[in-house]
Amino acid sequence: MFPAEVYIQRRKRLRELVGSGVILFLGNKDVAMNYAANNYPFRQDSSFLYYFGLDVPGLAGMIDCELGGETIYGSDPTLEDIIWVGNQESLQEKALKAGITLVKPLERLDGDVFRVIAHAREVHYLPPYREQRRLQLAYYDNLKYEEVDRNASEALIRAVATQRSVKDSYEIQEMEETMTRVTGEAYTQAIRQIKPGAFEYQVSGVLEGAALAKHCRMAYPVICSVNGQILHNHYYGNELKKGQMLLIDAGAESTRRYATDITRTYPVGGKFTGQQAEIYKIVLEAQLEAIKAIKPGKPYFEVHKLASTVIARGLKELGLMKGDVDDAVNHGAHALFFPHGIGHMIGLDVHDMEDIGEDYIGYDLDFKRSDQFGTAYLRMAKRLQEGNVVTVEPGIYFIEPLIEKWHSEGRYRDFIDYKAVRKYSGFGGIRIEDNIVVTDKGHQVIGKPIAKELTEVESIVGK
Amino acid sequence: MFPAEVYIQRRKRLRELVGSGVILFLGNKDVAMNYAANNYPFRQDSSFLYYFGLDVPGLAGMIDCELGGETIYGSDPTLEDIIWVGNQESLQEKALKAGITLVKPLERLDGDVFRVIAHAREVHYLPPYREQRRLQLAYYDNLKYEEVDRNASEALIRAVATQRSVKDSYEIQEMEETMTRVTGEAYTQAIRQIKPGAFEYQVSGVLEGAALAKHCRMAYPVICSVNGQILHNHYYGNELKKGQMLLIDAGAESTRRYATDITRTYPVGGKFTGQQAEIYKIVLEAQLEAIKAIKPGKPYFEVHKLASTVIARGLKELGLMKGDVDDAVNHGAHALFFPHGIGHMIGLDVHDMEDIGEDYIGYDLDFKRSDQFGTAYLRMAKRLQEGNVVTVEPGIYFIEPLIEKWHSEGRYRDFIDYKAVRKYSGFGGIRIEDNIVVTDKGHQVIGKPIAKELTEVESIVGK
Repeated sequence: MFPAEVYIQRRKRLRELVGSGVILFLGNKDVAMNYAANNYPFRQDSSFLYYFGLDVPGLAGMIDCELGGETIYGSDPTLEDIIWVGNQESLQEKALKAGITLVKPLERLDGDVFRVIAHAREVHYLPPYREQRRLQLAYYDNLKYEEVDRNASEALIRAVATQRSVKDSYEIQEMEETMTRVTGEAYTQAIRQIKPGAFEYQVSGVLEGAALAKHCRMAYPVICSVNGQILHNHYYGNELKKGQMLLIDAGAESTRRYATDITRTYPVGGKFTGQQAEIYKIVLEAQLEAIKAIKPGKPYFEVHKLASTVIARGLKELGLMKGDVDDAVNHGAHALFFPHGIGHMIGLDVHDMEDIGEDYIGYDLDFKRSDQFGTAYLRMAKRLQEGNVVTVEPGIYFIEPLIEKWHSEGRYRDFIDYKAVRKYSGFGGIRIEDNIVVTDKGHQVIGKPIAKELTEVESIVGK
Repeated sequence: MFPAEVYIQRRKRLRELVGSGVILFLGNKDVAMNYAANNYPFRQDSSFLYYFGLDVPGLAGMIDCELGGETIYGSDPTLEDIIWVGNQESLQEKALKAGITLVKPLERLDGDVFRVIAHAREVHYLPPYREQRRLQLAYYDNLKYEEVDRNASEALIRAVATQRSVKDSYEIQEMEETMTRVTGEAYTQAIRQIKPGAFEYQVSGVLEGAALAKHCRMAYPVICSVNGQILHNHYYGNELKKGQMLLIDAGAESTRRYATDITRTYPVGGKFTGQQAEIYKIVLEAQLEAIKAIKPGKPYFEVHKLASTVIARGLKELGLMKGDVDDAVNHGAHALFFPHGIGHMIGLDVHDMEDIGEDYIGYDLDFKRSDQFGTAYLRMAKRLQEGNVVTVEPGIYFIEPLIEKWHSEGRYRDFIDYKAVRKYSGFGGIRIEDNIVVTDKGHQVIGKPIAKELTEVESIVGK
């Protein structure tokens, strides 16, 4: 946990921002894998962690905006429990570390919530993402299960988005340290495994094991694939063959549950082919240019557009695209090769605060979400602020079903040379990603640099 | 998956055992970690795997006991999906591998279930262990959420228990292979890390990473602790100190999701102290004697009692227990040191079928659960059958809160020398566990042996 004062100040600000009523944070519970006693590793709710810091299952936190009261609900192990789980810090002691003195048994929560409702005071809650929490909220609100999400508090969502979007020095330090000591080191170990004849799972297993051996889990399921063009891909069963590329998208979660999120693309056998090297250079240029553009006040949408333009220009030089580059990007033709956004905020979640609603996090009155294929998937468009931490992750992919679809529909024939594209059949995909903090004057890449220059990458693979 | 014929035969037998009505198996869905799109690794329901073999989220299976119809419900990716997830085998193709020809969209499931209910036919289901499934069953049955578990089908539970308790040669082969190739090898790598100054998480991380690098996850959360006496313990933050012991309880899950479950206890620094060696020898003797007793027809309760007797006798020789050994065990005095059962069935779950009710799995008309502390926690007491796979895992622990409690209550003063026990303060705990298949004539330990003889263990730690 951070010092108690950090949580005290966050909650004080939250009370001011929400203004009235009572705020209810339901912490996460354990989730059964295959029977009730065999649980997945516990993951606390991120907003609960942000305001209370307590990383144990089965807690709730209540904050009274008007009266100022702050309560943690939970249970202490009984004497019987202690025989099996050992001596534990009491909930009272834990809560004190978050600056909270009032602790009540979890059984008191329902009554306290109903008392607030009986006084016709509003109970603010965030939209749930697990059934267990949705069920509990439905019970309080006397709502149909389906209505719970809709009744989430917009005032609370906006307040949480405001606070969590700007990272303080503790949070940035935490991400820096985890990136260098854990994620970077895990990549170093994994890269050594990339050899013809190895399997994807050998590389991803070593990467994940290296993080575990530093007491960290992964922030999200690893992508480690010779099919980098398949964007939602958690299959690890392929054998690596010389001439292929291996795309790895992985990041450790810090001990305080902050995410890191890195992507690199490596040549199996240690040498990119001519075709691969040409595309690699374009992606890297797009990434470096996009990073360079990051500063307070800059719309993230423009960073996305800049990367898209670098990509379209590069592909035009290779003969894959044609016509006016700006026109092509404005019309969305580049999205055949770069069909996702340039990145997203990152913090306690890898897609930070995605649970409370992407449009609250990445869009505002000035920036509405595009409905154009590709740009529509941009998770954030609004102006960057000092303290934002974002990913920058352009890519170029040859997605056969997408190419076939567009080709058969005759889409963007003025901007895409489908005959030239055909020569890249089986190419796969390349993505390069880093995490960037917006500083007062510009930006800083988080963590000790992880090799991404072409020759540097070639020199370390499989060694 | 195993050959289709395996699943066809299992379902045929199930229909015969249940006899009438319709059997509904709801497969597991994905579970969100911290937001809807960031899921835990998918774990299919074990009974669904047993009868259908399909290891993908969001499926359901229906079996008509009278008419013989078998249906898989699920969804195929749309053309849009394929852009992101790549070309996938169709659900039809997947279902054929389980010997099922009738596939319907998941949207049809609700209607089909309600049609069965409308015809006043019984819908058999197993008790749910996740809220998502409990909710769905409550909806079908028009039940209060709390009533769902109670309305689970006893006929189905008994049939599943009958079938899954006896492993076929495919299943045994799967566990053998995973034990040798993955769990055994993971232990080999982890043992090398056990050195003074290392942290528990370094050892457990290497162990888990080694399994991942073989394409296997763990069957349950690893225990890796210098506090072996804390039985429910998933903390890995302690530094290893010379003279301590490290207890590791871990097992890989095979690619077809069969569990393995091994415990070993290692001396940090490579040499047991005199006190540790004396206790280690007792635990090992108890384990070897218990394994030797395993054969068809033998009540597992007797195996438990045999191990308890070896432990009590050994502790008496060391002066920790006193009086008549058999009396001590009959009265339950040994449970101060060995407060859990000798083991449990293992298969698709590490505690096999614990979700459908431990008493159905381990007890029957001849063997009722004891209410004596210690023996009450024995998960299985009934006679062993050829094809059962069980763990054998005796241990001796010095659990300070339990010792204090019994001592202050004056419990078993005739059998326990509390003054002698005090000399073991800070000792920790030792457990040794293997997985055993009951054969026609006796038993066989699963997998290539993992070192457990005292001198062998000492010779490999930290090397």
